[in-house]
Amino acid sequence: MARWDPGADLRLQNAALDLYEERGYDDVTVEQIADRAGLTRRSFFRYYADRREVLFAGSERLPPALVEAVGAVPREVPPFRAVVEAMRTVGGALIGQLDVDRARRRHRVIVASPELREREHSKFAAVTEAVAGALRGRGVDPGSALLLAEVATVAFRTAFERCVTAGTTFSSECDEVVRDLAAALLGVARDEDRRGSP
Amino acid sequence: MARWDPGADLRLQNAALDLYEERGYDDVTVEQIADRAGLTRRSFFRYYADRREVLFAGSERLPPALVEAVGAVPREVPPFRAVVEAMRTVGGALIGQLDVDRARRRHRVIVASPELREREHSKFAAVTEAVAGALRGRGVDPGSALLLAEVATVAFRTAFERCVTAGTTFSSECDEVVRDLAAALLGVARDEDRRGSP
Repeated sequence: MARWDPGADLRLQNAALDLYEERGYDDVTVEQIADRAGLTRRSFFRYYADRREVLFAGSERLPPALVEAVGAVPREVPPFRAVVEAMRTVGGALIGQLDVDRARRRHRVIVASPELREREHSKFAAVTEAVAGALRGRGVDPGSALLLAEVATVAFRTAFERCVTAGTTFSSECDEVVRDLAAALLGVARDEDRRGSP
Repeated sequence: MARWDPGADLRLQNAALDLYEERGYDDVTVEQIADRAGLTRRSFFRYYADRREVLFAGSERLPPALVEAVGAVPREVPPFRAVVEAMRTVGGALIGQLDVDRARRRHRVIVASPELREREHSKFAAVTEAVAGALRGRGVDPGSALLLAEVATVAFRTAFERCVTAGTTFSSECDEVVRDLAAALLGVARDEDRRGSP
């Protein structure tokens, strides 16, 4: 086999997902994945650090993509709105190039494994950190930036999961999430104003 | 030593925290903790399942306490406001009985260890699950309940950490978090209304 094998990464990803579904993540080895993909163990490690990472290929691109998208929103747009717009752009593009059925299968595999859930959690922690940085870059103080970034991450993850589950568009799910949150928080904030007023 | 030793659990908690600070979590054994507390390894396991759990003693009481506090809020109060009120009650009581300096030290130890961070994450995942159940019990649909519970958990954790770091009151930090979030989301929701109007 030639050293340069253009479909190898995708074949490994598909083989891993198939095997994790069939046997459970804990009972699958790198050898079995490589074998199913028609490759050697050594080839596997040319693409992925371990059998966990093969399921998270490309996820390292999400934080910088969000930062770049926030940067593309005009400076006069308020910081959190800029983040929501960036999420719509990046989430929409992500869903556009996604095999939704595959994403649903992947989601089920992740939910079933504590180790994969922890990896998924780290992925979103990296998103939070990147978004917090982008908010600080727009003049938000570090404490608020972290808080808003955490909520933006929850919103992004929720919209994305709903989109994958229901087969809807990312922007409509994103709008609904923001509306839901705004309605809930407005009710509380209004009440606090009342409590604060004489 | 008598089998019933009223201060043993606290001595073990303090010994563990001291040792984790001195040597790092990964380099401390159950034997060392028991020894520092003047107890045997067997006594340690009478109180805690492992050297991780000794640092999370009592955290299993947080989810049911929040559920109970939500239940105590009158039914006519809107669901998310009921959750915020419950968080104020539980968080305030928690901070009231807390050794803030010890909480700060514990927080630093947790942040330094991936394993402890993951345990902390599970603790808050249990809070989210409990709050989502309480919201469903107030008629919120399951999807919104989960979303609002996740945001409530972020708000609770943020208010709690700020409180411990700054030595302020829980209710004032909780109010500021809610105000921050409401202001950010209101800006976006207003804009979406504008976009939606003819």
